Amino acid sequence: MVRVLDKGIVELKNFMGGDLAVVAAARVSNGVSYEEASRGAEKDQKLINYLTKHKHGTPFEHSVFQFYIKAPIFIAREMMRHRVSSFNEISGRYVQYEPEFYIPEQFRIPAESNKQGSIFPSDEWKRQFDWLCRRDVEDICSDAYETYKDLLRRGVAKEMARMVLPLNLYTQYYWTVNARSLMNFLTLRCAEDAQWEIRQFAFVVRDIFKEKMPMTFNAWNDDD
Amino acid sequence: MVRVLDKGIVELKNFMGGDLAVVAAARVSNGVSYEEASRGAEKDQKLINYLTKHKHGTPFEHSVFQFYIKAPIFIAREMMRHRVSSFNEISGRYVQYEPEFYIPEQFRIPAESNKQGSIFPSDEWKRQFDWLCRRDVEDICSDAYETYKDLLRRGVAKEMARMVLPLNLYTQYYWTVNARSLMNFLTLRCAEDAQWEIRQFAFVVRDIFKEKMPMTFNAWNDDD
Amino acid sequence: MVRVLDKGIVELKNFMGGDLAVVAAARVSNGVSYEEASRGAEKDQKLINYLTKHKHGTPFEHSVFQFYIKAPIFIAREMMRHRVSSFNEISGRYVQYEPEFYIPEQFRIPAESNKQGSIFPSDEWKRQFDWLCRRDVEDICSDAYETYKDLLRRGVAKEMARMVLPLNLYTQYYWTVNARSLMNFLTLRCAEDAQWEIRQFAFVVRDIFKEKMPMTFNAWNDDD
Amino acid sequence: MVRVLDKGIVELKNFMGGDLAVVAAARVSNGVSYEEASRGAEKDQKLINYLTKHKHGTPFEHSVFQFYIKAPIFIAREMMRHRVSSFNEISGRYVQYEPEFYIPEQFRIPAESNKQGSIFPSDEWKRQFDWLCRRDVEDICSDAYETYKDLLRRGVAKEMARMVLPLNLYTQYYWTVNARSLMNFLTLRCAEDAQWEIRQFAFVVRDIFKEKMPMTFNAWNDDD
Repeated sequence: MVRVLDKGIVELKNFMGGDLAVVAAARVSNGVSYEEASRGAEKDQKLINYLTKHKHGTPFEHSVFQFYIKAPIFIAREMMRHRVSSFNEISGRYVQYEPEFYIPEQFRIPAESNKQGSIFPSDEWKRQFDWLCRRDVEDICSDAYETYKDLLRRGVAKEMARMVLPLNLYTQYYWTVNARSLMNFLTLRCAEDAQWEIRQFAFVVRDIFKEKMPMTFNAWNDDD
Repeated sequence: MVRVLDKGIVELKNFMGGDLAVVAAARVSNGVSYEEASRGAEKDQKLINYLTKHKHGTPFEHSVFQFYIKAPIFIAREMMRHRVSSFNEISGRYVQYEPEFYIPEQFRIPAESNKQGSIFPSDEWKRQFDWLCRRDVEDICSDAYETYKDLLRRGVAKEMARMVLPLNLYTQYYWTVNARSLMNFLTLRCAEDAQWEIRQFAFVVRDIFKEKMPMTFNAWNDDD
Repeated sequence: MVRVLDKGIVELKNFMGGDLAVVAAARVSNGVSYEEASRGAEKDQKLINYLTKHKHGTPFEHSVFQFYIKAPIFIAREMMRHRVSSFNEISGRYVQYEPEFYIPEQFRIPAESNKQGSIFPSDEWKRQFDWLCRRDVEDICSDAYETYKDLLRRGVAKEMARMVLPLNLYTQYYWTVNARSLMNFLTLRCAEDAQWEIRQFAFVVRDIFKEKMPMTFNAWNDDD
Repeated sequence: MVRVLDKGIVELKNFMGGDLAVVAAARVSNGVSYEEASRGAEKDQKLINYLTKHKHGTPFEHSVFQFYIKAPIFIAREMMRHRVSSFNEISGRYVQYEPEFYIPEQFRIPAESNKQGSIFPSDEWKRQFDWLCRRDVEDICSDAYETYKDLLRRGVAKEMARMVLPLNLYTQYYWTVNARSLMNFLTLRCAEDAQWEIRQFAFVVRDIFKEKMPMTFNAWNDDD
């Protein structure tokens, strides 16, 4: 289990396949069996590099990761746009949410070079700026959660009451994704123009990917 | 363009296919050409009923709808879980959101028969109850939007400031979906145990589906 | 490794998930952790039955099977129409095919009750009939393979020469598929109106599914 | 309707979307409406180029093509591996196939530079070589079709008898695919290392794509 942001989590729950499954899937096109698929680390790495470079994606689909993720909703929304994967999420229709909100340590100002991105300001007023912004965020989250509880206390259904909760509320879910789709996720979400918060999740996912499929990671990393 | 809830919209932007495309796709298995695919309304309807009843889904994939949708985020999140479809959405990283929030006319209490559902209470205190709840929702949305603007005014990046906005904020997006995936959506989201708000959107989508593909609608409706 | 037909194979190469992964994915909607997801065999079975009956398919997507399959091309073509799964196949562009053809033991006549199906005739002339048909199939396969080799010997590219080989040529491939998509496959391909040959493959896949996910198998089997 | 190879066909049956749909889907992220999405040909082209270059694929998913294709089975098998698309095909379980086989005009020898590819030999013996190969292919197709008819005449079910037919038998099907998936198809199947026969189909599909979505074609063509 790896902690991300102030209260987030990324944890690998299940995994199948690996670099050998990639190599075996590629070499079945030559009629080679799973058991004889590996030709040593060097040749296997070379093959995986070739597949990556030439966008031969299917051999990577036989390796699959299941993650448990705890993330703010505005980040979860970005992750759930990756359709070649499977999600099951906590439901605000069934359960009362805990008052767990993402409260940033630091606040970013818009990047000049980039329409939608943002950067950390380096000026001396930064500490004061962060303190003020954090207080604002904490206050509104606290107020929203009070309203949420008031509505529930009055008898409003959970599925309605939840609508007042802000987008930095933490949600949790399982995410199952094959290595091909995972690499696409990483390429997009580790990128410099991705939102800083989702990058923190993507970096942890990348580390797990690297550990489980070191050769495929190398190939992806060189190509990316 | 059809209005849904207080500020929502469903609008068909593009469409291709139709009942004839279903019939043609089914009858190509018998080597029949597109031009000769129809055998009259009665036989065509019977064929479509057969396909629906026996879960032969592929002939319905050649008909495609593109909708423009404006919906609260907590409803959009449910719609975007339907992965066999395409979405492009307004981005809170690029634009400053308008203060458009879903403010319910009436508030529902939990259904006794159903863990996650909800019903409209019929008691005399209802008017007062709705008035109080609505005031609470309006107040917190107003406060959240103030905090949002404060953060922006201080120079915080849009992608960060948006995290304080509540889940009833209106978002907008295109949704392209084929008739097979659409029927699956309608079966799940018109159902009685679906959330009332998404049902309102699903009902409008269903009407458009009925208009564009009347035979397929009949078959789905009888089978559902 | 299980033998199917005269020269076919089904073999499970990798697997992840299982009944517990189904139960955990379903109960995350209530905020229950993976470790606490099981509530004993009886309650878990009941939950899985409920999911199956109400077509809640996503919890089954976190369990994944990788099979190695050796099957005649006309059967492989049916399997490869299941798009929510991953395939890597031997390529007739790269390798010279071995003369491995499916030669049926028995031949079926059309079922009267069913347009596309077929049945085994029970009459006394059956032995003679099978003998004649088998000889015809063997002869043409032998001739086709001779032509294939002649073309190769003359220098024709493998990718062209293969076009003369018949549809009962054996091919081989990996097939990775999650439990949701697998159940859909089994429902369609174990059915009485499916072709007898693909049913033999589907029955073996079903046995493996039953062994790996006994509760999910029960639920699917009762619902199917 | 465009003729391909000796008896093949590519025909556009339905289409929706177009360059404007791409531009509208991209600009909805800025909150721009469909009606105001275009900013003139030059700016639209520039936007589409940007999307293509940065692999922003979703805006292309709202444009959809339905083709009717008639192709040899060994080519159809390659096309049907493109899973993000919809197929309905003539069924050899239902209908008796016509004796329509792909008989190449010219035969290719293996390319030296490329393991699986092939080239047209330029030597003077070419005419003789082609004549001999063509005769071989014609003969075996004729024999196979005779065996097919014999089996049917004896009473064997169509679904079994078809197994003796060769892979160059023509099949026919509808193929519905969005512009994003189509561009992926074209990149892979117009490429020099793709089989010559599928390239002929891909070139026709490309022409239709160019006609219907000229700006998107330009962007894809420059990037490819």
